[in-house]
Parts: sequence; structure tokens; C-alpha cells
Amino acid sequence: MQLESFVARSLGRWRSMRSGHSLAFQQFEDVRSSVLIESIEPQDPLVLNLLKDCTIRDAKPIHPFRMEWNAESDWEPDDPSAITAGSCILVPIPTDNRKGILLRSVGYAEAEQAVSNYTFLEDDTFILSTQYGQSIAEERIWFVSENVRCRSSVLRTSAGSGILQTSFASEIRRLDSFSYQ
Amino acid sequence: MQLESFVARSLGRWRSMRSGHSLAFQQFEDVRSSVLIESIEPQDPLVLNLLKDCTIRDAKPIHPFRMEWNAESDWEPDDPSAITAGSCILVPIPTDNRKGILLRSVGYAEAEQAVSNYTFLEDDTFILSTQYGQSIAEERIWFVSENVRCRSSVLRTSAGSGILQTSFASEIRRLDSFSYQ
Repeated sequence: MQLESFVARSLGRWRSMRSGHSLAFQQFEDVRSSVLIESIEPQDPLVLNLLKDCTIRDAKPIHPFRMEWNAESDWEPDDPSAITAGSCILVPIPTDNRKGILLRSVGYAEAEQAVSNYTFLEDDTFILSTQYGQSIAEERIWFVSENVRCRSSVLRTSAGSGILQTSFASEIRRLDSFSYQ
Repeated sequence: MQLESFVARSLGRWRSMRSGHSLAFQQFEDVRSSVLIESIEPQDPLVLNLLKDCTIRDAKPIHPFRMEWNAESDWEPDDPSAITAGSCILVPIPTDNRKGILLRSVGYAEAEQAVSNYTFLEDDTFILSTQYGQSIAEERIWFVSENVRCRSSVLRTSAGSGILQTSFASEIRRLDSFSYQ
């Protein structure tokens, strides 16, 4: 199953460079951060808690994982509040080999519990679509090598097709012997 | 043919926000630029000139176009040389509905004439792969709405799999009545 392989390749520590583009204001925001992705047990209380709220019948979650990030924005270098950190539990529920649902304890665009639809394109690009209260996010993640992955996002208003912002992250696996392979 | 539709949607004036990520140095480069994409005649001398050097037998070019860009880097705001501009002739030669060759008068990664392979994914993402002397570039272009498109690139060394840099551009069509739809 593509989802299993995708999660397996994503596990580890990543050094992320992320650029946000605010289209209306033509502003850039560049952020360096550290991202940790690790497996968690299907029986972990945090996973069971997410599933409890899930209305999908016969949900068969596989490979739940946890993301943790520590970001430092370049907008306000002297402002300690600009250093943001957080974590999130993610629970995939495949519906077939290439598609499924992803439960998230914290959303990408809005800090609320979220349910995303995912699908894989033929070149293994992972596409995630999430409807929030005020917005719709589309994220794409693709591996360009074993240790480098790219992640883009587009955020649009849920009423209409206005595009609010986009972002792009280049993520390099942190290895003991540091490498850009 | 997907290529025809892709070129038709790309024509016009675009306002581009582009972020480059240098992975080795963990540096960002943010650039605003203006991009013009316009059709040119198949009989244009610039097109015929590119085809003359092309070794593809029975090449059947369609919808040649021209790109022109004016970029202003934020690295050296006081340095007039940081304002870069250029133009390029592009000649698509489809091999089937979803794949083909793209001749370019100026390459993306290196300023030499280049031959790219292109393919469309099932969601209409346009993928362009170009082998240069010292590097291989993969570019992706996808429309997120009629008037907003995204463009990413990954540049790797042609010897081995080292990733040199990535970039991401958000491009908004310039309309008389300015809109982010």
C-alpha cells in the first residue's frame, strides 16, 4: 500500500526551509524549522481519542504517526513569540490502495481537529485536501530523493475560489553524517 | 491534447513571487518578478532556428511560445545588476497526448539551449525534466485556479543524486481589474 511506504519514508528528523507567499500583500515569510516524524502505537490513547470522534464506519486506521515542529520565523527575530512549536497526531484510514482519510489532532490552516482526504498521484506525489471552517487547504508532498522531500500548500477561501496564500518547504533528513543526497 | 490546453491557460501577464532554497547553505532568496507568456508563429525565424538544431525525426512542433521575465532580487536592493531580465523561446513537440519534448532557446538551470522531456500527471500537473551539462532540473507547474499557478523546481547534480537547490513560485495573472480568483 502506498500509504505505508509514504509514512515509512517520512519517519525521522528533518531540517525544513519553508517559504510562505501571501498573494494579496505580495509578502514572503521564510522560516527554518526542525521537524520530527515518528510512529506511534495504534493503541496510543491519543489515537483512540481521535478515532472516538470519527464518524467513519468500520474505520481501519494504519500507521498512525506524530509530527513535532520547532520553527523560527525571520519576521521578528527579536520576538520570542515568533519561535513557534507544536505537535500533531495523524491517523491514516485507507479506503483503497491510493486513497483514504487522514485524521489530524491539529489542522494545518486552522488549529482545530481536522479530517483530510488524501490521494496519491501516479508518480507517488501525496495530495492532501482539508476543508476547514473558513478555508480549504491543498497540500502536496513528494520525495525528490531518499533524504529530500518537498511540500507545497495552497490555501483558498471555502466560499469561492480566492487563493489566500501558498507555501513551499524543502525538507532535508538530518543524518549523523550530514548529507544532501 | 493536454499541451494545447496548458499553453492556452499559461498565456498572459503574470506577477510572480518566487522563493529559492539553497539546501547546502540553508539560504533563502525571494524574488518578485513580472512574467509575460505569449504565442508566437510556428514560422517565426526563432522557432525555425531552434528546430534546425533539433535531431528529432519528423518533429511536429505545436503552439510555440515566448516567455519574458523581469525579476528584482531582494538580496542586493541597491545593486542594479540584481535586476535580471530575460526571454526564452519554447517549442513543444508532442509524442503523444500526455508526453513530449520541449525545445528551449535558453535553459532554466544553465543559460544554454536545452531539450526537456515533459509529461502530464493525471491531475494535469505539468512535469518538465531537463538534463544540462552539470545538472538535472525537474520543474512542476500546476494551476490552482484559472488565474493562479504554482511552479516548483528541483536542481540536482547530474553525477549522483545530490540536491543543489529548490524553488517555488506563486504566479498570479495580471488582470485589468486586479483579482486573486
